[in-house]
Amino acid sequence: MNTADRLRRLRRELRTKKIGAVLVSQPENRYYLSGFSGSSGYLFITGRKTVLATDFRYLEQAKREAPDYRLLETRQNLNNWLPDLLGSTRNGQIGFEEGYVTVAQHHQLSNALKKVRPGIELTPSNGQFEQLRINKEPYEIEQIRRAADLTRAAFEYAGKIMEAGISEQRLAWQIEVFLRERGSQALPFEAIVASGPNAALPHARPSERLLCEGEPIIIDIGAKIGAYCSDMTRTFCLGTPCETYQRVYHTVQNAQEAAISAVHDMATGQEIDSAARKVIEQAGYGAAFGHALGHGLGLSVHEPPRLGPGSDDLIKNGMVFTVEPGVYLSGWGGVRLEDDVLVTNGIASII
Amino acid sequence: MNTADRLRRLRRELRTKKIGAVLVSQPENRYYLSGFSGSSGYLFITGRKTVLATDFRYLEQAKREAPDYRLLETRQNLNNWLPDLLGSTRNGQIGFEEGYVTVAQHHQLSNALKKVRPGIELTPSNGQFEQLRINKEPYEIEQIRRAADLTRAAFEYAGKIMEAGISEQRLAWQIEVFLRERGSQALPFEAIVASGPNAALPHARPSERLLCEGEPIIIDIGAKIGAYCSDMTRTFCLGTPCETYQRVYHTVQNAQEAAISAVHDMATGQEIDSAARKVIEQAGYGAAFGHALGHGLGLSVHEPPRLGPGSDDLIKNGMVFTVEPGVYLSGWGGVRLEDDVLVTNGIASII
Repeated sequence: MNTADRLRRLRRELRTKKIGAVLVSQPENRYYLSGFSGSSGYLFITGRKTVLATDFRYLEQAKREAPDYRLLETRQNLNNWLPDLLGSTRNGQIGFEEGYVTVAQHHQLSNALKKVRPGIELTPSNGQFEQLRINKEPYEIEQIRRAADLTRAAFEYAGKIMEAGISEQRLAWQIEVFLRERGSQALPFEAIVASGPNAALPHARPSERLLCEGEPIIIDIGAKIGAYCSDMTRTFCLGTPCETYQRVYHTVQNAQEAAISAVHDMATGQEIDSAARKVIEQAGYGAAFGHALGHGLGLSVHEPPRLGPGSDDLIKNGMVFTVEPGVYLSGWGGVRLEDDVLVTNGIASII
Repeated sequence: MNTADRLRRLRRELRTKKIGAVLVSQPENRYYLSGFSGSSGYLFITGRKTVLATDFRYLEQAKREAPDYRLLETRQNLNNWLPDLLGSTRNGQIGFEEGYVTVAQHHQLSNALKKVRPGIELTPSNGQFEQLRINKEPYEIEQIRRAADLTRAAFEYAGKIMEAGISEQRLAWQIEVFLRERGSQALPFEAIVASGPNAALPHARPSERLLCEGEPIIIDIGAKIGAYCSDMTRTFCLGTPCETYQRVYHTVQNAQEAAISAVHDMATGQEIDSAARKVIEQAGYGAAFGHALGHGLGLSVHEPPRLGPGSDDLIKNGMVFTVEPGVYLSGWGGVRLEDDVLVTNGIASII
């Protein structure tokens, strides 16, 4: 991991925005900028300094994982260690993660600042860290590719062991064992196996329902390798699929292809979404595709860009995101197809 | 699940605090008050009404899980569905979860309110929902007990399969498989297996390190049954434990017993903590016990009360919390013992 380069890019942005320092506490941002993987702590980054404040439980780990950071032990009372964290910083604006920091944390932090450094103001960082993470480095792409390859292998495995009479929960668990035994870290999200009418719920939890022949079975799973996520969906059918299934499946497949083809450098998230949506609408299923087309993925399984109605996120080379159209028919079930794509030379290809 | 009774208790509190309504988005609070287990959505609860707003992905699930709530579909733009959520509520204070809602969400919500209902003000709910959840109902205690029983069985299993040469990661995974195959939902936290020097890191991640004889091996695991968590720790030693191990183990064991005996109705979290801390200090390991003694558990694996230095949380009948003293010696390792206790008749007993 090239922390130095990431810090350089962050500092360049800080100079542009005239922000003197940032306070980072969102786990993925923290990891991205320091290598520290513990579940609690603050990074304080200025133009020159990098400090990592964490509690007793993580000190040894922080020492190993974030050698470029000065370490600081936090104690219950913020006022006691905040001055040490801020060091000589006495004035100016400190960026914070407004999409992660809670109202209570913000309140506590501003109050403490008022006491120990009245010249400092907190200012929202406006998704600056997620923007840093949006362009994937070759190392990151490699990890996502490994996660995606493993997920593909898991779908192949699922296709082999799937049979009428096995429960959604059982199948989900067998897939999880497959992924974990082959190197996935704890799954980025709970595996979805949704069969028959349950497949009409885009985010169904695996239930005790037994798989039957002829009905749609949606499997949405991801792996995590080297801290990076994949997120993919396939829809299966045991036995002979009915006409509805074939028509819906075809529609979703065409929608996915249309969306992937629509990707170009500087396209908006909305543009790609509507390429898929148009295909589904034309097939008469417009109302049955109620969610967005996709989302970025990397250290988080959901991160920018967003591909959906109203999204003006710009698609650029080096981005990785999901393309996942779906059609859901209450009472019958649904079909979703999801792949992870990487944009290079203005073209999206499945990673 | 007795949602009606929980709502009654919430409404009683709202009347006392003169808050007209609350907006609930923290997943465990949402589940507690509605039965809805999806990962996204708002409850809006007034003295008379209960509304659940969630997006397309969860509508069918919400219908099944929260039959007492009026359902509302959320769309990207808050302004479009917020008036419908608020209904006839035009004035007064709406409590929100200041420990969960982010600064960005709060900002967005206040702005939308200013537009559509300028007479409404957001007010922090001051942990009110966690306070509702702090006294466990018999049904909840039963779920936690099942989770704890399963965790005990997993420790027994771990003791049997543990041997020199197996890696921390492998052992952690085998324990996870044991728990999941016997009915645990996705684990409430990543299993910790920390051996030798790694056991000096209270929150170590399982590594590729192979277990050796004669060194401390800390295993910290939990199960989740019916949405309720357990959280327990045992420390093992393969072969003959050294003198340090025996002395430290004994100290931690005595500290845990002292803390459990110190529990009485209306004791403070600090009081119970210092009962354990005193034993560890007297043995000369005071500096090596750097974390708090324990925390409540239930739907969340960490919830009030807090047992630690400075905590004035009052311990009362019906509460369930962990008691987990530990001693960590850099370079050597550590010992932690953790059980989940329930307070009844002013006495704590292991659940």
